[in-house]
Amino acid sequence: MTGTEADRLEAQFAFLNEADRLKSVLRATTLCDGSRRENSGEHSWHLGLYALVLADHAGPDVDINRVIKMLLIHDLVEIDVGDVPIHSANGQAHASHDTQAAEARAADRIFGLLPNDLARDLRALWDEFEAAETPDAVFAKSLDRVQPVLANLMSGGGTWVTYNVTAEQLETRVGSKIARGAPRLWTWVRAKTQAFFG
Amino acid sequence: MTGTEADRLEAQFAFLNEADRLKSVLRATTLCDGSRRENSGEHSWHLGLYALVLADHAGPDVDINRVIKMLLIHDLVEIDVGDVPIHSANGQAHASHDTQAAEARAADRIFGLLPNDLARDLRALWDEFEAAETPDAVFAKSLDRVQPVLANLMSGGGTWVTYNVTAEQLETRVGSKIARGAPRLWTWVRAKTQAFFG
Repeated sequence: MTGTEADRLEAQFAFLNEADRLKSVLRATTLCDGSRRENSGEHSWHLGLYALVLADHAGPDVDINRVIKMLLIHDLVEIDVGDVPIHSANGQAHASHDTQAAEARAADRIFGLLPNDLARDLRALWDEFEAAETPDAVFAKSLDRVQPVLANLMSGGGTWVTYNVTAEQLETRVGSKIARGAPRLWTWVRAKTQAFFG
Repeated sequence: MTGTEADRLEAQFAFLNEADRLKSVLRATTLCDGSRRENSGEHSWHLGLYALVLADHAGPDVDINRVIKMLLIHDLVEIDVGDVPIHSANGQAHASHDTQAAEARAADRIFGLLPNDLARDLRALWDEFEAAETPDAVFAKSLDRVQPVLANLMSGGGTWVTYNVTAEQLETRVGSKIARGAPRLWTWVRAKTQAFFG
C-alpha cells in the first residue's frame, strides 16, 4: 500500500470514527414508543428511510439520491453544537447569527477531517442543505421537519406537551416548512395532528 | 385528498413508524467510545456514511446509490429476529436454515406494510443484499463487516475480548468478507488489527 493511499484511508476513518459521536447527541423528540430520547445518528438513518419511501412526494426536479446523502450528513455539526429543539425558546433562535457561526465552525472541523476532495464535496452538500434553496434541500428539510411530527403523534404528544405547543405554532414552525417541499404530505399529516390538537 | 392517496400514505407511514423499532434492537458491538451497545438503526446510518466516504473502494460495477439504499434497509428484519452477533456461537450459525426462514418471514411482514410497488422494490433490494452475489451487495456486505472492526479497534477490543476471538477467526469470519468487496480496505484495516492481536 502506498503512503498516499494509507494517508487517504487515515483521513477517511478519522472522519468515520468522529461521526460515531453523533450517536450520543440527544434530541428533544423521543422514539415512537416514548421509551427514550432519540439520538441524531438514528434520526439521520430514519430520515434516509423517509426519503426512500416518500420519494413520490418529491417534485420533478428532486434527485432523491442526493437528498439521501444530504440527510445522512445534515446533523453532523451537532457533534460540536448539540441539537437545538424546534419548539424550545432557543429553537426559535436557531437561525441566529451565533448558532450559524458555531455550526459553520463545526462543519469546518468535522468535514475538514476528510481528504480534500471529499471534504469539499460533503461540505458543499451540507451548505446546500442549510441554505434550503435548491429543490433537493427544500425536500430534505421537509422530511427533517415531518419525522418528529410522526414521533410526537405516536408517543402521545411528546415535545408538543413538553413545550406547550399550539396548533398555530406547529403550523408556523413546522407545517409551513413541510408544505414548502412536500405540500400533499403536510395536508395528510396536518389532518392527523388535528386529532391531537382538537 | 383522494382515498387512494390517503391509503398509500397510511401504508407508507405504517412502515416508517414500524421501522422506528430498529432503534431499540441492540447489537453486540459498542459505540467507538465503549459507552454503550450500538443499536441497529444508528448502525445502519453509520454504514450509509461509510458508503458515501469509502465509495472509491467500490469496484467499477458498483452503483453507490443502490448500496446506500441497501444499507439503509439491510437490518430491518432484526425488528422481529434480533441481531445475531458475528463472534457468538450463534453467529456462526447465522446462515442456518432456521435463521434464514425467520428473516424471510420478517421481511414478508415488514416490507409487506408498504404499498405494493415499494414493498416489491425494497424486498428485492433486501433479497439482493442477503444473496451477496451482485457487485452492489458484495460491497455493501464488506462495509457491514468492516464497521464493527473499527468500533472494536476504537473501544479497546470490544466483542473480540468478550468472545475470545483470535486473529485467525477474525480473518475467516470477517476479513475474508471485507476483502471480497473491498480488498485494499481490508489490507489497511488488517494492519491496524495486528497491533491488537499482536
